[in-house]
Amino acid sequence: MRKILIIGAGKSSSYLIKYLLDKSQSENLHVTIGDLNVENAKKLTNNHTNSDVIHLDVFDASSRISAVKNADIVVSMLPARFHIEVAKDCITLGKHMVTASYVSDEMQALDELAKDKGLVFMNEIGVDPGIDHMSAMKVIDEIRDKGGKLLLFESFTGGLVAPESDTNLWNYKFTWNPRNVVVAGQGGAAKFLQENQYKYIPYNRLFRRTEFLDVEGFGRFEAYANRDSLKYQSVYGLEDIKTLYRGTMRRVGFSRAWNVFVQLGMTDDSYVIEDSENMSYRDFVNSFLAYSPTDSVELKFRHALKIDQDDIVWDKFMELDIFSAEKRVELKRATPAQILQKILMDSWTLAPEDKDMIVMYHKFGFELNGQKHQIDSTMVALGEDQTYTAMAKTVGLPVAIATLAILNGTISTPGVQIPITKEVYTTILKELESFDIIFNEKDTQYLGYNPLHQ
Amino acid sequence: MRKILIIGAGKSSSYLIKYLLDKSQSENLHVTIGDLNVENAKKLTNNHTNSDVIHLDVFDASSRISAVKNADIVVSMLPARFHIEVAKDCITLGKHMVTASYVSDEMQALDELAKDKGLVFMNEIGVDPGIDHMSAMKVIDEIRDKGGKLLLFESFTGGLVAPESDTNLWNYKFTWNPRNVVVAGQGGAAKFLQENQYKYIPYNRLFRRTEFLDVEGFGRFEAYANRDSLKYQSVYGLEDIKTLYRGTMRRVGFSRAWNVFVQLGMTDDSYVIEDSENMSYRDFVNSFLAYSPTDSVELKFRHALKIDQDDIVWDKFMELDIFSAEKRVELKRATPAQILQKILMDSWTLAPEDKDMIVMYHKFGFELNGQKHQIDSTMVALGEDQTYTAMAKTVGLPVAIATLAILNGTISTPGVQIPITKEVYTTILKELESFDIIFNEKDTQYLGYNPLHQ
Repeated sequence: MRKILIIGAGKSSSYLIKYLLDKSQSENLHVTIGDLNVENAKKLTNNHTNSDVIHLDVFDASSRISAVKNADIVVSMLPARFHIEVAKDCITLGKHMVTASYVSDEMQALDELAKDKGLVFMNEIGVDPGIDHMSAMKVIDEIRDKGGKLLLFESFTGGLVAPESDTNLWNYKFTWNPRNVVVAGQGGAAKFLQENQYKYIPYNRLFRRTEFLDVEGFGRFEAYANRDSLKYQSVYGLEDIKTLYRGTMRRVGFSRAWNVFVQLGMTDDSYVIEDSENMSYRDFVNSFLAYSPTDSVELKFRHALKIDQDDIVWDKFMELDIFSAEKRVELKRATPAQILQKILMDSWTLAPEDKDMIVMYHKFGFELNGQKHQIDSTMVALGEDQTYTAMAKTVGLPVAIATLAILNGTISTPGVQIPITKEVYTTILKELESFDIIFNEKDTQYLGYNPLHQ
Repeated sequence: MRKILIIGAGKSSSYLIKYLLDKSQSENLHVTIGDLNVENAKKLTNNHTNSDVIHLDVFDASSRISAVKNADIVVSMLPARFHIEVAKDCITLGKHMVTASYVSDEMQALDELAKDKGLVFMNEIGVDPGIDHMSAMKVIDEIRDKGGKLLLFESFTGGLVAPESDTNLWNYKFTWNPRNVVVAGQGGAAKFLQENQYKYIPYNRLFRRTEFLDVEGFGRFEAYANRDSLKYQSVYGLEDIKTLYRGTMRRVGFSRAWNVFVQLGMTDDSYVIEDSENMSYRDFVNSFLAYSPTDSVELKFRHALKIDQDDIVWDKFMELDIFSAEKRVELKRATPAQILQKILMDSWTLAPEDKDMIVMYHKFGFELNGQKHQIDSTMVALGEDQTYTAMAKTVGLPVAIATLAILNGTISTPGVQIPITKEVYTTILKELESFDIIFNEKDTQYLGYNPLHQ
């Protein structure tokens, strides 16, 4: 039996565990799940004969080391900051490792050691980062192999609700960590390249500089810029590209309404609101508006943001009930972002029958034999239920497939890496197709940013 | 001879040195100026017989210690972060000390030692902080001494150009550190109290939430909120006050135009613009606007900020010549704020004949014998030329007067302190009047924030 240790059985582990257990007979696998919450993990293994569940505290070195020692490969599904101790154990004990997280500096520092020991340390192999890397590099390599020259690469991902569960005016529910949604875009200007010009968008303009994207069968989306559009420029070998832009997808209209929270300062996570515990939602909103003995919070809000009463944006705030004088914040020493998160969770938490959706959209502009071309590549994954979500599927399956491929030697190049080589993405993208994670590639006219001139 | 050591003969030292030298015969004073720039310091002493100038590097411990040892009192006019080594020497060698800077935690930590040795360590005795403390505490103490209860305290200060030098559309020139003007208001939400309600203004709204203030003989001003309105609440003994607001004064219309820079992200000091050295002013502005092969930077700017062509705000930007394709940034690895500062310095640097102006405005709302009252207290100081500026006068004279008062024992309570006690402010405010720094106090109707109901 080849022994796989999965540390952390959180939200994104359902498909990962299912895939490996489904293959455990034919592939001769034993899967051990180590988690602080043994009961939850047991639900996911369902007492499968080729599985067991152990209580594992990643900060308890002796039990962690003994679990790693007993495995042939280790998958860490913990939050990114907890990987490093496991990674060091894997180096010491000579085990391969797989994570869906961004490569930290500490992880990168293990590269030489991993190579010396012939170990594969695969990271960023979830959905974003993960499937985005693989699906982009596949097309980029194809264009280059034909002798094409990349001019433009834009890449967008969104974690949204499935159309059948899209039941509120924001066309949005929390399908992942709500906190990340509330503070998204903070911490510095978004930076990207458009036609060889560096462009900068400050946080307070981010949600007003969106682009539209149409996905066949799913209608129109919008995207706002990520802070890190240039992060993979050299990794993907796009040093000479003219346009490089990465963004986050929402349904059209989300950003214009979200911008109201940004403008008022409600997404700020850097200070604590006085006496937040005893505030109503109305008090919270009012604390960002000028004092008046007579004017209503509603009118002050509309006036400050110049929202007409028949503007759909207004209905979105009414739907959230943010002017309620009865609903209480009830959070002690909370930041504006924490309070806003609570208010949003009242409205945006998935109902038991709700399904989620992952949407990805890449644009590749290139020149080949003197002609400009564009390929648009789109993928939509839909969740089945609240355990087998689209998020868990698109994060967990690439992790699972990579884990088995490493065990089987299909992926064998050692070192700390991300899935951008043909060795890695060919196998994984192909197998993802059998799980309905399919990229729809379409040749289209290259417009660049010169739509009037072509 | 009583020996005074002044360390640092920068912009704000002219009146300080003049005051002490003018009194040097009658008061038996010898004034030593220690500075890195001996020539500049000599211009200010003009070879006065009771003065000398020494080369002093505050980081050279032995020459610093010997200069301090030779003095009876030390005035540090250095930037605030350089005071602490001098302060420690003063403790060791038993010398009084005076600064116009905010009390740092390190300075505060010397309080016990200063008291033990009977030393006066006077800080925050410039204009803001300084004259604002003294003029406010005088009125607050008078109200309390009569049995009144403070309801409202608002305090505003502005460093501006004198009306006769007010020659541009912004009604503004740099009369002090330009960098502080460019980054003003950054670093967190402004927080204040209005009618017992805590209010928060994020940076991106700060310059749109202004108040108007009329000063007799000088017309109308506006003010935007300081970040630290609550900083002196307990120091002034205003724990039960309903309204507490501190702000910065500008001429009306400045903030609405300045907000355009804020919205576009041009005041950001947290990251470096790519290839800033080779940019034109036009390129710089364009980097905050979406790419277009056809639309002009001017139209994109107007569209992004919704500025009509006949809006006076537009003329303000034209006056700055920010769309120039010829003028070059020429700064290597510069932040947006550094580039903006350079562009503004082209237009806002004082001409040789220009004069500056300091304006201060306090409002005191209080209840006395069941009646509500308000006192408005205003002060305007005008500069004489570019050496004897209003800034140098209002910063330097309180420092000078305090220094002499400490030598003469009029101010004698030891410890690290700021000028909020009667012992300190009575002497100083009285003498400032003979230099035309006069607060005009006026009883007015208490309106609070209920103008329609009173």
